[in-house]
Amino acid sequence: MIEHTVEILVRYAETDQMQFAHHSNYIVWFEHGRIQLLKKYGFNYADLEKSGYLMPVLEVTARFIKYAVFDETLFLKTKMLPLSAKQSFEYEVYNSQEELICTGNSLHTFINKNKRATRPPRDLIKKLKPYFEI
Amino acid sequence: MIEHTVEILVRYAETDQMQFAHHSNYIVWFEHGRIQLLKKYGFNYADLEKSGYLMPVLEVTARFIKYAVFDETLFLKTKMLPLSAKQSFEYEVYNSQEELICTGNSLHTFINKNKRATRPPRDLIKKLKPYFEI
Amino acid sequence: MIEHTVEILVRYAETDQMQFAHHSNYIVWFEHGRIQLLKKYGFNYADLEKSGYLMPVLEVTARFIKYAVFDETLFLKTKMLPLSAKQSFEYEVYNSQEELICTGNSLHTFINKNKRATRPPRDLIKKLKPYFEI
Amino acid sequence: MIEHTVEILVRYAETDQMQFAHHSNYIVWFEHGRIQLLKKYGFNYADLEKSGYLMPVLEVTARFIKYAVFDETLFLKTKMLPLSAKQSFEYEVYNSQEELICTGNSLHTFINKNKRATRPPRDLIKKLKPYFEI
Repeated sequence: MIEHTVEILVRYAETDQMQFAHHSNYIVWFEHGRIQLLKKYGFNYADLEKSGYLMPVLEVTARFIKYAVFDETLFLKTKMLPLSAKQSFEYEVYNSQEELICTGNSLHTFINKNKRATRPPRDLIKKLKPYFEI
Repeated sequence: MIEHTVEILVRYAETDQMQFAHHSNYIVWFEHGRIQLLKKYGFNYADLEKSGYLMPVLEVTARFIKYAVFDETLFLKTKMLPLSAKQSFEYEVYNSQEELICTGNSLHTFINKNKRATRPPRDLIKKLKPYFEI
Repeated sequence: MIEHTVEILVRYAETDQMQFAHHSNYIVWFEHGRIQLLKKYGFNYADLEKSGYLMPVLEVTARFIKYAVFDETLFLKTKMLPLSAKQSFEYEVYNSQEELICTGNSLHTFINKNKRATRPPRDLIKKLKPYFEI
Repeated sequence: MIEHTVEILVRYAETDQMQFAHHSNYIVWFEHGRIQLLKKYGFNYADLEKSGYLMPVLEVTARFIKYAVFDETLFLKTKMLPLSAKQSFEYEVYNSQEELICTGNSLHTFINKNKRATRPPRDLIKKLKPYFEI
């Protein structure tokens, strides 16, 4: 299982007048989580783009269970599902009391420089395949 | 059917290095759409909060079909589903060629000042009910 | 004098837990204002970038006089100072009571595709010069 | 001298189509820097607000020297100037090559629950005064 946990500290600018972290920020955090997951497994997203690939979002969902507040430290666990032309990631956000406060998932495709759908880059397959073969 | 369309002009700050409008902005636009829809039907969300109600998001999904770019004018159509303790809204985003580029939906609850779940505010029911009775 | 006024409706996501529009949004609005000003005077910023020019920000200042709140309509007046390799813009934000709530200014440079400083694009000079010659 | 350095990792959502970190993010980072500085010196901004004080921004300036890119680690050094009814902070952003890429400053006031200007909270004076007396 490919997974990785990052810490998120809720910034003041991420709050809204409801006194909670605005829900749109979780979408930004999910992205941060999957980029850090890829990095942990030897795959730099910045390099992926430089080599001519993009991994745009086809779909994203977030489900909110409990609110996060300013200056709270959150733990975002990202899971990468097996490699696919329609690549899935799953997310779980925990607060410091280890309560699950949000879940989510996203679906991605790979496109090349001409913005056409393409197979996952070979380098990504090579680096990540071993982890899915167990 | 309660629905309302707002125009969105993609701001420079909303783009990302993929040269598209970053996907998290659609979540912000959906919120703008449902607030304007409520306003059109005589219901000011600012007043709702002043009267002690909040309508936090329980779940939000966005599905991306085509990309939007900087300075593009988009048309966001928001639909409000029948009043419910779990209130649903649906979204469709069109570009200026009338292509559907994104769909979405969100689920909300009503909470009171003590952050407890509550029925939809009476005033909202009164104002919106007629539209659902046809 | 080259100037242009745009309307800004404060979005919910732009508020913070202080119950005001977060101050970082004014920087985003200033950018929106100067892009719309250029458009009004026949100059599309999207086209500028396509033709290989960028106009990055060298410096930006915002001074806050009064707070803006959710769902408030603001009027942002942008002034463009005479064309220069260090291009200046000035900003004034008014609320619906016509109170001045924020002032600002920004300084820009023009860079070409190789990210080197360059003179303002000829097309821009041609289009805007007449307005400064009075 | 009261100062504190925090690390910032440029998020994908913080980039724009110029391929740089959008300039408005520095304003958000400055805020993060001064909140972490206060925390380091025993002063929790969340508690400050709970006790009825707000520290809104009167003025903020950012000067950009060099661009930051996606996934770059930046070091933001925040300095707090001596306590005053008009409180100043200064900022310097360095990239991982230790190049200074941005400087800034901000001016703040203290307001109480009634949104009236007030002296800096006693607790803040008590905690920070020793550092300014050397």
